[in-house]
Amino acid sequence: MKIIIIGATGTIGKHVTAALEKEHEVLKAGSKSGDLQVDISSVESIENFYKAAGKFDALVCISGDGHFGPLASMKDADFRTGVNNKLMGQVNLVLIGQHYVNPKGSFTLTSGSLAEDPVILGANLSTLNGAINGFVTGAAIELENGVRINAVAPGVVEESPAYFPYFPGQIPVTMYRVTQAYVKSALGGQTGQVYKVF
Amino acid sequence: MKIIIIGATGTIGKHVTAALEKEHEVLKAGSKSGDLQVDISSVESIENFYKAAGKFDALVCISGDGHFGPLASMKDADFRTGVNNKLMGQVNLVLIGQHYVNPKGSFTLTSGSLAEDPVILGANLSTLNGAINGFVTGAAIELENGVRINAVAPGVVEESPAYFPYFPGQIPVTMYRVTQAYVKSALGGQTGQVYKVF
Ligand SMILES: NC(=O)c1ccc[n+]([C@@H]2O[C@H](COP(=O)([O-])OP(=O)(O)OC[C@H]3O[C@@H](n4cnc5c(N)ncnc54)[C@H](OP(=O)(O)O)[C@@H]3O)[C@@H](O)[C@H]2O)c1
Ligand SMILES: NC(=O)c1ccc[n+]([C@@H]2O[C@H](COP(=O)([O-])OP(=O)(O)OC[C@H]3O[C@@H](n4cnc5c(N)ncnc54)[C@H](OP(=O)(O)O)[C@@H]3O)[C@@H](O)[C@H]2O)c1
Repeated sequence: MKIIIIGATGTIGKHVTAALEKEHEVLKAGSKSGDLQVDISSVESIENFYKAAGKFDALVCISGDGHFGPLASMKDADFRTGVNNKLMGQVNLVLIGQHYVNPKGSFTLTSGSLAEDPVILGANLSTLNGAINGFVTGAAIELENGVRINAVAPGVVEESPAYFPYFPGQIPVTMYRVTQAYVKSALGGQTGQVYKVF
Repeated sequence: MKIIIIGATGTIGKHVTAALEKEHEVLKAGSKSGDLQVDISSVESIENFYKAAGKFDALVCISGDGHFGPLASMKDADFRTGVNNKLMGQVNLVLIGQHYVNPKGSFTLTSGSLAEDPVILGANLSTLNGAINGFVTGAAIELENGVRINAVAPGVVEESPAYFPYFPGQIPVTMYRVTQAYVKSALGGQTGQVYKVF
């Protein structure tokens, strides 16, 4: 199976890459790192990326930034930085990638726990995560040729201690649990699911 | 109580307006109709609107368009028409409106059933609805001075028969149930809730 991992060098991505590359051909991508570069916030970059990457069986996106900051001073422009990156970046990977993915292939996107379990400063990410969860729900029933789509919604992960002060009382999730959710989506048979790892 | 209703002349909005104006001062708004005009897709228009409307106790938005069409041919630009209207329009009503709302006031936004109960052609609306649900979840814990925020998520309503062919097998929801959800949000004490009316 040929699997593209966007964000393969990231905190979560490197674990998912290690798990999947044991038995599969993995094409690692990042904006600067990896085998092939792509900036998910740019439609043109995504189009060029797929042309260069060629047909594939699974795409896993473990990338996407949101705006983290106080609601009281949040502006349209702050909010849109996240919309253009974590939301439209992942949506465009699917809108464009549906024309490159092999039959019975899959897309796995990343949302997060904040859609349902909010924290102070996280309103933009709560929105983006809810949006990604909604998108996989809607897209799953339209993708053709048996192509599947799911989202993984991680809580704060054990290897991101810099985030812990912003997630008081939350029990960081193990990399094993998070990684297995991506593996389940890419190699399993389910579609339209949000795997909550929190 | 002074209540602003955006979309007061719409299919759903006219019922909510009728229910709330019996005992409250209602300022009706629309892009063309109502007492005062606002285009929710424009930040500048929203800013001018709030300056003209003045302080208020509750804002109810029953407006917001998404893109309805096949995923297979959906493009970034199609997707963004909905993002700029139903999502950013309602988000900006809160980001800007938080500086005009009275203490203990409230915001009520509109999402919809498609976030969880998708239909063919509805991937954009599934996304926008999930986003709005995530936004109220995140924003509720940061709004100051006791200000509340909820979303109403209607299924297809009994007075929108033109939509029925796109919602096969769905039982249209009564205007009474939908209206009561908006009343509950505006006049009740809850916050961070998504009232599912489907
Ligand atoms: N860490 C957590 O606790 C946590 C919890 C819940 C959800 N999440 C979500 O999980 C995802 C990954 O988080 P992470 O902590 O693993 O991130 P990370 O450590 O910052 O890694 C990000 C990865 O994405 C790549 N990347 C960055 N910008 C990109 C762009 N514009 N286009 C393409 N690739 C890009 C990076 O490679 P380059 O440097 O080469 O660009 C890197 O491989 C994010 O969506 C995050 O919101 C994380
Ligand atoms: N109808 C349903 O079955 C159903 C089901 C689930 C969810 N919803 C959601 O509920 C909301 C209202 O639906 P509806 O069917 O009642 O809509 P509708 O009948 O089309 O009414 C829309 C209302 O919004 C106003 N409006 C339109 N564009 C605007 C803009 N750019 N800025 C400010 N106001 C604007 C309109 O007034 P003007 O003409 O003056 O602009 C009108 O009062 C939408 O978000 C829809 O997605 C509807």
